[in-house]
Amino acid sequence: MTSPDTERFIADVLSRIGARGVTTAHDDLAPWLSDWRGRYHGAACALLSPASTEDVVAIVEESRRHRVALVPQGGNTSMVGGATPDQDGRAAILSLRRLNRIRDLSADAGTAIAEAGVILSDLHDAAAGIGCRFPLTLGARGSATIGGLISTNAGGTQVLRFGTMRALVAGVEAVLPDGQVYRGLAPLKKDNRGYSIDQLLIGAEGTLGVVTAATLRLVPAIVDRGVAWVGLESPHAALALLRRLERATDRIESFEIIPGDSLALVLDHIPGTRAPLAGRHAWHVLIEAVVTDTSGEAPARLLERLLADALGDGVGDDAVVAASEAQAEAMWRIRDSLSEAERAAGPAVQHDISVPVASMPDFMIDGVAAMERAWPGTHATAFGHLGDGNVHFHVRAPAGVDRDAWYATDAHRITAMVHDLVVAAGGSISAEHGIGQMKRDELARLGDPARLAALRAIKSAFDPLGLFNPGKLVPLAPSADAP
Amino acid sequence: MTSPDTERFIADVLSRIGARGVTTAHDDLAPWLSDWRGRYHGAACALLSPASTEDVVAIVEESRRHRVALVPQGGNTSMVGGATPDQDGRAAILSLRRLNRIRDLSADAGTAIAEAGVILSDLHDAAAGIGCRFPLTLGARGSATIGGLISTNAGGTQVLRFGTMRALVAGVEAVLPDGQVYRGLAPLKKDNRGYSIDQLLIGAEGTLGVVTAATLRLVPAIVDRGVAWVGLESPHAALALLRRLERATDRIESFEIIPGDSLALVLDHIPGTRAPLAGRHAWHVLIEAVVTDTSGEAPARLLERLLADALGDGVGDDAVVAASEAQAEAMWRIRDSLSEAERAAGPAVQHDISVPVASMPDFMIDGVAAMERAWPGTHATAFGHLGDGNVHFHVRAPAGVDRDAWYATDAHRITAMVHDLVVAAGGSISAEHGIGQMKRDELARLGDPARLAALRAIKSAFDPLGLFNPGKLVPLAPSADAP
Repeated sequence: MTSPDTERFIADVLSRIGARGVTTAHDDLAPWLSDWRGRYHGAACALLSPASTEDVVAIVEESRRHRVALVPQGGNTSMVGGATPDQDGRAAILSLRRLNRIRDLSADAGTAIAEAGVILSDLHDAAAGIGCRFPLTLGARGSATIGGLISTNAGGTQVLRFGTMRALVAGVEAVLPDGQVYRGLAPLKKDNRGYSIDQLLIGAEGTLGVVTAATLRLVPAIVDRGVAWVGLESPHAALALLRRLERATDRIESFEIIPGDSLALVLDHIPGTRAPLAGRHAWHVLIEAVVTDTSGEAPARLLERLLADALGDGVGDDAVVAASEAQAEAMWRIRDSLSEAERAAGPAVQHDISVPVASMPDFMIDGVAAMERAWPGTHATAFGHLGDGNVHFHVRAPAGVDRDAWYATDAHRITAMVHDLVVAAGGSISAEHGIGQMKRDELARLGDPARLAALRAIKSAFDPLGLFNPGKLVPLAPSADAP
Repeated sequence: MTSPDTERFIADVLSRIGARGVTTAHDDLAPWLSDWRGRYHGAACALLSPASTEDVVAIVEESRRHRVALVPQGGNTSMVGGATPDQDGRAAILSLRRLNRIRDLSADAGTAIAEAGVILSDLHDAAAGIGCRFPLTLGARGSATIGGLISTNAGGTQVLRFGTMRALVAGVEAVLPDGQVYRGLAPLKKDNRGYSIDQLLIGAEGTLGVVTAATLRLVPAIVDRGVAWVGLESPHAALALLRRLERATDRIESFEIIPGDSLALVLDHIPGTRAPLAGRHAWHVLIEAVVTDTSGEAPARLLERLLADALGDGVGDDAVVAASEAQAEAMWRIRDSLSEAERAAGPAVQHDISVPVASMPDFMIDGVAAMERAWPGTHATAFGHLGDGNVHFHVRAPAGVDRDAWYATDAHRITAMVHDLVVAAGGSISAEHGIGQMKRDELARLGDPARLAALRAIKSAFDPLGLFNPGKLVPLAPSADAP
């Protein structure tokens, strides 16, 4: 449904950025109106595809003039509906995909300047081409864009050593809701000129500005890795092992915990997988150590030495270090197949949560038990990034229930209870995926009042007209002049 | 001058936090009304010393009720007048020094929870007591407090490896201007519940809230260090050497550059110093490498090996690795005496600036030359943290000028020109010290308009009454309701 306002908006944008940047045909719009998992479906008056920062400024100026909201979108891989417009059809999708140049790349400086639409795997390739690495990766790397990764403060599997995007962004360029360009790309290691606008835009989900480019940290390329699999009796033993390793070396990049029954599911459902260890263990961890030069101890030798010591001291029950890349890949395949195996086992609700690392072992035991007690017949599982205090917390439906009915009735109440447990443990209801539209009400229900008031105050200060990704993350403060 | 408003405010605060927390006697107030370098002199109606976060809440509530502004103060070691009140005497100093408990300390978790008034050297000692290190240090460590270090995003001499406070703070507790307590101490490695309030408060100079406590990252204690001195022909050779070392190892914690004439000044003016190398060199670098376990190569051997390779390839002219702790201390004493030696050589204006690391060698040569050309008879020098893109940039007065007259006439214009050069090089007019009252006008003159508008919007959103450290960092937006 296109109202006269949006028609004039589209005509004015078209006159400023050209026809190639404006799509209104229904079939061309359709793929971008739903999230990739098909949970959220919206409508939009147009898909706008600027080719430059100046084009974005033009779009933002027209958006202000005509009071047409903008929904920024990168690779459309949000897990929380963060890039899907609402259903009234008056907003425009602002796609950053044409802003896809790597403006600069320097092994010496250890930085890349990438535009918002650069796809993560393309950045990986470019960095590798100069003997470097951008040390953040995740499943959607073939679609996810730098702008989206920044706007959601993405994490992934290498956070243990290098942190999330928040630690990897050295500078941001963005168009703010007032139409001004914030130019923060200079990679200054020390800069104390007031509040960090860079850090404010990281994780802001496009509600405070449109990220158009960023300066990113690169690190030396990996020259060798060691991968090990350890069987142990509890998450507490796993955390004790992690602490030992962290004291002994700073080469550990991954430390993933897997319950015995999740491993069994993988072995049952995923063809070609086999258990890395002979015996049965209640819990498992997958560890990866890497080096960036060959002058020191090989990472496989390092892991063998440290794990032999640990097992000798009773920390861990059995361990094996991959003897080849093929064995290492096979271990990672088990980890990467956990979600697929869980899905094959029946309908489940999944949660992306974090608690302080020190609290995680208790949470993994007590939280799972509390859920299964409260919801008889369900099966709860927690697995993933123990070292980040971030696990995937799945609750599988009782055997034989009707999938749709269960999702319609119990699933939301189960999620609310998981979130209550997380808050009681001092944790976060969104570790990695952000708030988007999916968790907005839960954030409002469970957020600390001081934090919520601060979020609303910032949103209202930056975007008093409410034109930047409305309906996501946080509502405007009540007094604000909504469109 | 105490007006009736402030009298009622003081009485109400006293009834809520007790007499021990309220000082109004002139002699007791005096030491806190000037900055430690004696450049700024203010007045205050009282010195308030809360003993708990709840006391701070009470003070903020009374501050709102009576419209009395608060000037947060920690160790009073600001370099930019950031903790000194203005001269009208209606504000109160809010001293955090009694909030000085270390609430928690864990080698396992690698964290400390310290209240705002904990002195940095006390935190160093506490961390050392559990085999850990808080990896940030600076000259004022015996006075500077955690709250002040956070509020100024302090840096120091170990930023190369561990970053500034921004990278070392895992969580913040603060009282916001609306009187609510923001409780963000839980050390969550992944947390995507919207804009980072922690990061917003870091470097905010007390203008957005009063930091009352923080969760800080600890790292393993150092067990061995190696210190080396290298003579080279240019800052470009120094940067080339740094890049080589960074590619070869991640053990380098300091990389300080010193011009030959600054070394000569130290040797002339500081008793007991001697040149580490026999020959004359145009430039020098001081390098420190550390290890936290003894299983690998000793850091002195590492430096010997890497420097021999570098010199063999023509990067660097001569080098010596300290053979003892005494030699290492003697090298550091030269570096630490540079400011004192510069002062002994005559009146100078100093600047705390940064540019991108890759631009620093040109800036050190061209910037110094431009200043000496524009101000005949002056002597300009740049030295310090090359690896952070942050040097001390001194301009010494022509020989024989009257000190006071020179400061009154030329100094400000010289500073403005240094700042212009920094901005032209894409740098920051405040690398480490913040803006405070000293650089506020320069920030307003030189700041990117989009950045300035964003700073003002945030300030007005958090502190619409303008009661938190008024006159520092950024003014309220014009429309705001000032007190």
